[in-house]
Amino acid sequence: MAKILNSTVKNIPWQEKPASCTDPVWRYTENPIIDRSFVKDANSIFNSAVVPYKDGFAGVFRMDDVTREQYLVTGFSDDGIHWKLNDEKIFGGYDPRLCEIDGVYYLSWVCHTVCGTSIGIATTTDFESWERYEDAVLPVSRNGVLFPRKVNGEYMLFTRPCDKGHTPYGEIFLSHSKDLTYWGKHRFVIRPEMNWEMTKVGAGPTPIETDEGWLCFYHGVLTSCNGFTYSMGAMITDKNEPWKVLHRADRYLLSPREIYEFVGDVPNVCFPCAALADSETGRIAIYYGGADTVVGLAFTTVDETINYIKEHDLIK
Amino acid sequence: MAKILNSTVKNIPWQEKPASCTDPVWRYTENPIIDRSFVKDANSIFNSAVVPYKDGFAGVFRMDDVTREQYLVTGFSDDGIHWKLNDEKIFGGYDPRLCEIDGVYYLSWVCHTVCGTSIGIATTTDFESWERYEDAVLPVSRNGVLFPRKVNGEYMLFTRPCDKGHTPYGEIFLSHSKDLTYWGKHRFVIRPEMNWEMTKVGAGPTPIETDEGWLCFYHGVLTSCNGFTYSMGAMITDKNEPWKVLHRADRYLLSPREIYEFVGDVPNVCFPCAALADSETGRIAIYYGGADTVVGLAFTTVDETINYIKEHDLIK
Amino acid sequence: MAKILNSTVKNIPWQEKPASCTDPVWRYTENPIIDRSFVKDANSIFNSAVVPYKDGFAGVFRMDDVTREQYLVTGFSDDGIHWKLNDEKIFGGYDPRLCEIDGVYYLSWVCHTVCGTSIGIATTTDFESWERYEDAVLPVSRNGVLFPRKVNGEYMLFTRPCDKGHTPYGEIFLSHSKDLTYWGKHRFVIRPEMNWEMTKVGAGPTPIETDEGWLCFYHGVLTSCNGFTYSMGAMITDKNEPWKVLHRADRYLLSPREIYEFVGDVPNVCFPCAALADSETGRIAIYYGGADTVVGLAFTTVDETINYIKEHDLIK
Amino acid sequence: MAKILNSTVKNIPWQEKPASCTDPVWRYTENPIIDRSFVKDANSIFNSAVVPYKDGFAGVFRMDDVTREQYLVTGFSDDGIHWKLNDEKIFGGYDPRLCEIDGVYYLSWVCHTVCGTSIGIATTTDFESWERYEDAVLPVSRNGVLFPRKVNGEYMLFTRPCDKGHTPYGEIFLSHSKDLTYWGKHRFVIRPEMNWEMTKVGAGPTPIETDEGWLCFYHGVLTSCNGFTYSMGAMITDKNEPWKVLHRADRYLLSPREIYEFVGDVPNVCFPCAALADSETGRIAIYYGGADTVVGLAFTTVDETINYIKEHDLIK
Amino acid sequence: MAKILNSTVKNIPWQEKPASCTDPVWRYTENPIIDRSFVKDANSIFNSAVVPYKDGFAGVFRMDDVTREQYLVTGFSDDGIHWKLNDEKIFGGYDPRLCEIDGVYYLSWVCHTVCGTSIGIATTTDFESWERYEDAVLPVSRNGVLFPRKVNGEYMLFTRPCDKGHTPYGEIFLSHSKDLTYWGKHRFVIRPEMNWEMTKVGAGPTPIETDEGWLCFYHGVLTSCNGFTYSMGAMITDKNEPWKVLHRADRYLLSPREIYEFVGDVPNVCFPCAALADSETGRIAIYYGGADTVVGLAFTTVDETINYIKEHDLIK
Amino acid sequence: MAKILNSTVKNIPWQEKPASCTDPVWRYTENPIIDRSFVKDANSIFNSAVVPYKDGFAGVFRMDDVTREQYLVTGFSDDGIHWKLNDEKIFGGYDPRLCEIDGVYYLSWVCHTVCGTSIGIATTTDFESWERYEDAVLPVSRNGVLFPRKVNGEYMLFTRPCDKGHTPYGEIFLSHSKDLTYWGKHRFVIRPEMNWEMTKVGAGPTPIETDEGWLCFYHGVLTSCNGFTYSMGAMITDKNEPWKVLHRADRYLLSPREIYEFVGDVPNVCFPCAALADSETGRIAIYYGGADTVVGLAFTTVDETINYIKEHDLIK
Repeated sequence: MAKILNSTVKNIPWQEKPASCTDPVWRYTENPIIDRSFVKDANSIFNSAVVPYKDGFAGVFRMDDVTREQYLVTGFSDDGIHWKLNDEKIFGGYDPRLCEIDGVYYLSWVCHTVCGTSIGIATTTDFESWERYEDAVLPVSRNGVLFPRKVNGEYMLFTRPCDKGHTPYGEIFLSHSKDLTYWGKHRFVIRPEMNWEMTKVGAGPTPIETDEGWLCFYHGVLTSCNGFTYSMGAMITDKNEPWKVLHRADRYLLSPREIYEFVGDVPNVCFPCAALADSETGRIAIYYGGADTVVGLAFTTVDETINYIKEHDLIK
Repeated sequence: MAKILNSTVKNIPWQEKPASCTDPVWRYTENPIIDRSFVKDANSIFNSAVVPYKDGFAGVFRMDDVTREQYLVTGFSDDGIHWKLNDEKIFGGYDPRLCEIDGVYYLSWVCHTVCGTSIGIATTTDFESWERYEDAVLPVSRNGVLFPRKVNGEYMLFTRPCDKGHTPYGEIFLSHSKDLTYWGKHRFVIRPEMNWEMTKVGAGPTPIETDEGWLCFYHGVLTSCNGFTYSMGAMITDKNEPWKVLHRADRYLLSPREIYEFVGDVPNVCFPCAALADSETGRIAIYYGGADTVVGLAFTTVDETINYIKEHDLIK
Repeated sequence: MAKILNSTVKNIPWQEKPASCTDPVWRYTENPIIDRSFVKDANSIFNSAVVPYKDGFAGVFRMDDVTREQYLVTGFSDDGIHWKLNDEKIFGGYDPRLCEIDGVYYLSWVCHTVCGTSIGIATTTDFESWERYEDAVLPVSRNGVLFPRKVNGEYMLFTRPCDKGHTPYGEIFLSHSKDLTYWGKHRFVIRPEMNWEMTKVGAGPTPIETDEGWLCFYHGVLTSCNGFTYSMGAMITDKNEPWKVLHRADRYLLSPREIYEFVGDVPNVCFPCAALADSETGRIAIYYGGADTVVGLAFTTVDETINYIKEHDLIK
Repeated sequence: MAKILNSTVKNIPWQEKPASCTDPVWRYTENPIIDRSFVKDANSIFNSAVVPYKDGFAGVFRMDDVTREQYLVTGFSDDGIHWKLNDEKIFGGYDPRLCEIDGVYYLSWVCHTVCGTSIGIATTTDFESWERYEDAVLPVSRNGVLFPRKVNGEYMLFTRPCDKGHTPYGEIFLSHSKDLTYWGKHRFVIRPEMNWEMTKVGAGPTPIETDEGWLCFYHGVLTSCNGFTYSMGAMITDKNEPWKVLHRADRYLLSPREIYEFVGDVPNVCFPCAALADSETGRIAIYYGGADTVVGLAFTTVDETINYIKEHDLIK
Repeated sequence: MAKILNSTVKNIPWQEKPASCTDPVWRYTENPIIDRSFVKDANSIFNSAVVPYKDGFAGVFRMDDVTREQYLVTGFSDDGIHWKLNDEKIFGGYDPRLCEIDGVYYLSWVCHTVCGTSIGIATTTDFESWERYEDAVLPVSRNGVLFPRKVNGEYMLFTRPCDKGHTPYGEIFLSHSKDLTYWGKHRFVIRPEMNWEMTKVGAGPTPIETDEGWLCFYHGVLTSCNGFTYSMGAMITDKNEPWKVLHRADRYLLSPREIYEFVGDVPNVCFPCAALADSETGRIAIYYGGADTVVGLAFTTVDETINYIKEHDLIK
Repeated sequence: MAKILNSTVKNIPWQEKPASCTDPVWRYTENPIIDRSFVKDANSIFNSAVVPYKDGFAGVFRMDDVTREQYLVTGFSDDGIHWKLNDEKIFGGYDPRLCEIDGVYYLSWVCHTVCGTSIGIATTTDFESWERYEDAVLPVSRNGVLFPRKVNGEYMLFTRPCDKGHTPYGEIFLSHSKDLTYWGKHRFVIRPEMNWEMTKVGAGPTPIETDEGWLCFYHGVLTSCNGFTYSMGAMITDKNEPWKVLHRADRYLLSPREIYEFVGDVPNVCFPCAALADSETGRIAIYYGGADTVVGLAFTTVDETINYIKEHDLIK
């Protein structure tokens, strides 16, 4: 029995797995849980981050407005399913991730610079006032994901270097920092290996610590004759050297099958950006973007996922 | 209170704005109003033009047949909503626009030449016999839109020069003519400025004269990793120098949200080609193509639209 | 009255043409007949081949699994509509075609080599044990389709040479062989002529012998700004020199119109891979892939189709 | 014996054809005649226009300066070979052509607009003061070449519509104008037919009137795996309907063979922009750019050229 | 000491290796030996094939004429260095190879079809009358090279499948035939491995039989920011299974260094198409195209080359 | 009179400016000073770095060997002109830069990683033994150039982020580090502004400290229809905030004009990688690659260059 470490979320959103389901991850039946109607002048809300906060949950949401400019807004929820979002834009940019380290909430996201995107980093304790740090990396990069604790005394950041367009390649790297300002020791983590992720891969939710190592969901992209398809994969990396991959599923765990994933501003996208994990029950709730238009919710357990990864292991 | 000038359409198609709607433009609830079943051997009917005609309405419709060749056909309607279309093809080409000047109906459309498309121009008084003029411009050009009256004694034509393929750029220009045959004084009007239109822009319906200037709807194109998304924007240009933009919305007024706009031969397209405007009520009815497959109808008022443009004005 | 030769399928799947339908081919009302749920770990099942077998039907199905690798699996049906598929993968590759020659079943498909795809060929008498031949052609080629009998003592194979990606061109060729191992006398058959097939064409189901010649369904691809659209066309080739086209419809006979053709892993695809034909009734049942996700079924008669081809004949 | 009409240039630059030469056009032995040293801060001087002026010659020269911005400068010569150029920039833009109509000198060139290049038009009588007209066409266009007299009372202009980059296509059109401001009746002239010009063609020097029609030199572009190769071809068009091609050589008359044509800022370019023609001797002197770096001079006679065109005629 | 088998060419062209040369292959000091002046109306002559014939040598030469269409012409020489070429075109197409089998001369070349290039095959005994066979393969293919004898009773043909343009990939395959008409058993031979050949590889001269196996020169292509660079590599394949590579040099043996290789219609090309080999002396004379413009000659010995391959062996 | 600071090179290579030269930079008359013959198995030697060392000079040279793999080798010279290079490869990668800080020599270069290039950093005191640091940045980056002293206590590094191919964009950034391992505070410096550098810019030689600020030579790339052209520009940045540009020439100071710059493995390249500067005389000697094939040398003075920059200043 695999165990989640250092993460207790008593009121984690949850639905039991349907009897008919043979997949390791199952969707919330009332998906999508968030759409454009949640924020004034929104074109779409998707690819968003949540964390436990006080007795409920707080989140930072990607909101593209009707100019199609990308912004981040905050939101709060008691149950992680029903959300109230604020209209106020906290930052420009997109695809936020959130984690808590020692009572402080760390936000990383794809921020705009004069020369392509970088990884913005900011902290808050109340989701109202934010302290912004130096951008972590040289442009162009996306999918910057912090680890939820220091490892060997250093912050750890996943990134995905890319080019200025709809980049046709992409690998995950891990960088180290003692102070969130200077970054170094850039380690290669993974690159595309299987068909479902053949164009590129990028880190997803904040890694989940387990007794087997860091459980990392990520996205992979396949290019069909009609464009990109985004699916979700998973791997387990070493606890102390988290760029070393111990296990990695050769197949996706979530891929577009529902109408809100197939149809929308960008057809055929499942893009995970956040996951809640409860150590007591082993439950995991994954928040993902559908078709670059809405937010969906999916469930699994640490046991199901880790068994599935090991059963279909690409490593060895 | 903004006023429409020189255009009275007593029986303009109309639905009141739904109470829940906070957008400046709202869709007809029975959309789409026209689909392929309206013409024999049609693959799709979309991107079409209508004008008031006698006691009702006449239209010229883009009909792609099952060879996927593009043609124009005519149609008539009493109420602007329920249409009867003719099977007979009047011209090859696509994306027609119509306007009436002094009792004569002027048709402009994207016509084929041996070296890419040009802007065809023809006139009729009865929608049965047509007089064809010289093509207005050198290929390659699309989105040729005539003004509904001469300005300073000259015909005015919007165009959108392009290349031979799915052009990745596009600006709107305005050309002058004294005789519909020789064109000159080509003036730059707009180019892409905002994300939602970043790939290209092109003129839409025949401009609507108002006391604030020419109200011009146009389309803008965004390129996602899965292709183009077409939305509708709006601007107001100077009454006497109609290439000078006085106001321009920084955001779209209509963008794909319904299944008949998201799904079809070309996913994610709202493409406006015609608008009726009634000076007494201030009502505007916009005809637009959905997913390059069907014709939809949307409504606004001159007041709503002009206020919206000024409220979100890109100019200064 | 056109006649089907050498093919009796008494229990051919069938639905009468709806009264309202004016098209030459009509869809099965319960489409899709096969989806991913039919095989464990399947991502999608589509572009598949069937033949009459014993008192019912056997098939070889393209099954992309959740790694998005392509495989072939077998299946059986009593009525050609309700199928039971096996989980066991018989070959890697995709887009199978099947035909029977003298009691032996010949499978051709797109097989992978170290340098792009080739045409794999294998035979069986029981759909359990298979004998594999040399790959028929140099890579890169797809859409290899065998004729259901030797012509002038030689096997006939349609192919569609291509490049290593989502090839932007494609013509159908016919090659000869005395022994299924050495191939020669490569004859050009058709290339794109009409808009609906302007990007490329490729052979579809096993040709159907008729008294007018070989009835060949094929697919054609149009490129919109949002990618490829696959439709089905038809032609009749000479009985003894089957690379000579006698008649060819200038228009498609089937093109994406239903949600399961518009929406899925690859939007806007109708891709025919098999057809059953019954000489007594003249009925034809066509199996085709929908949106690279599911299997659909459509019907016509030899008379309808041949009349339609001749009525809209591209040849002279 | 073909005759040049309406053009007497007694002191036309000239060298006799070398005995060993079997080509219809031969190079000046002291080529290049102009290089960057002729103008301060020049990076290169090429693709330039000359006309007889007073007792000698005047010219407008493309001068790219060391910012690599393109400008036009004037120059004068007694013999058409030895030139003195001015440092003063008269216009921005490139690839000028010059002709004289009724004592006025007409300059057309590729001018920059906010949205790609157009055809600038200006006149002078002294090569010091210039009157600029409206740009003739909508962008994007290049290679605008005026005829040296009105035909049927209208100015005639060759153009070559294109896209914003290194356009991979290109045809020559002819437009009409009564006033140099409004242009219409756009007639297709030629497109690529032979390998040496397969990528695109564009008009070259001002057409030369002969008793056989308008003798028009033009450039054609072939794309090798290492880029474009520019060569010079020739055709004869109808005197009164100059868009109708009577004869056209199937082969180039000048193509890169010398080091100053093979090597330079753009390797492998012969780009003709001007030609002097003397009716008494039948001599023709052609000015052309070499490798987008220098100006070269080549010679032929009206007889040689017209015979060569007819001997290798693409028309019929 | 490696030995050449089955090939005696007493009067093989030859120059001793210069003392200063440390390369395995050295150029003829009077290069180029053939240029455009050798054939009337030639634009360039290069990439050509030669064989010993009677007391001297015969050749088939690629001649691009001034329309830039490609043709083959014949030529003869007493010493293999000084050639006399015929103006008469024997076939359309390019890049010929020649070999002699049992007194018959076999020509293979890149021939044009309606759908891209194939491999033409023809035979002669006198270089005047030719018998043409079926094209060997489906288009698109280039670099078809026959072995100079049957192996295990079958003809052997190297090919290089490609696409319709300046193909960005390319591997060498070997096909078998009993009769020169039907081809099968297509075997993969090599693909790009090293930087100098990273874009593609293609077979070069007719393989030379040695006691170590078949000595095969081939070309490899590197893509710089300014296009393709063609160099010559070498490998040794198994005598009886000639698709099995025993040794292969990790580096080129000849690459553009001379002005006639750097500068011309296609800069930076050394393209070998023929090699003479003399068993008594071990001498090898290689004919190669320079810059797609001229024919050059280079020398080596079987010993030098085989030692060099083994010394820098990519295999193991 | 501008002054060079902190750099005395008594025996700096030097030639006086030719009387006829009006350019700010002039070439060494015996160029190229280094070619492939200097190292065994070299294909080309170019884009190399030098520093004063002991009584003479040491260098690190880009040497592409005949496999076309890139390596660095060392070399030494008494006069900076005549060099002796070692065959031993010290690192894989290319485009080295060298500087001395407090008696230690710092090498930065474009090193290969599993996912594109990064900036390698290593130090030496004797050019024999090297200590390698962590790669400075995430791939993909090129043109990493260290400043010759710490500024405000931190190392300063210019970089040029890019993509995996022949990147069509490129800006110069500056990063900070306290320890050469962790880097942060990434500051934008410049992007393309003028035609000659319109595709991309990248840092060149180690910046030269002057009393006006840091004198930085850099390269800019223009894309013609036949590929990239590399030229050298110059700017002056703030002494204490060296990412702030005080002055920048709007034009190149060196661009391909000589045969060894126009012709070679990559035509049309001047690529500066090193500069020596002598404070007493104000002399500057620039080492640059020619056509990616050889090393050339050019001269200027701090006065000439700084005056030229200010005279043609892009800033304001």
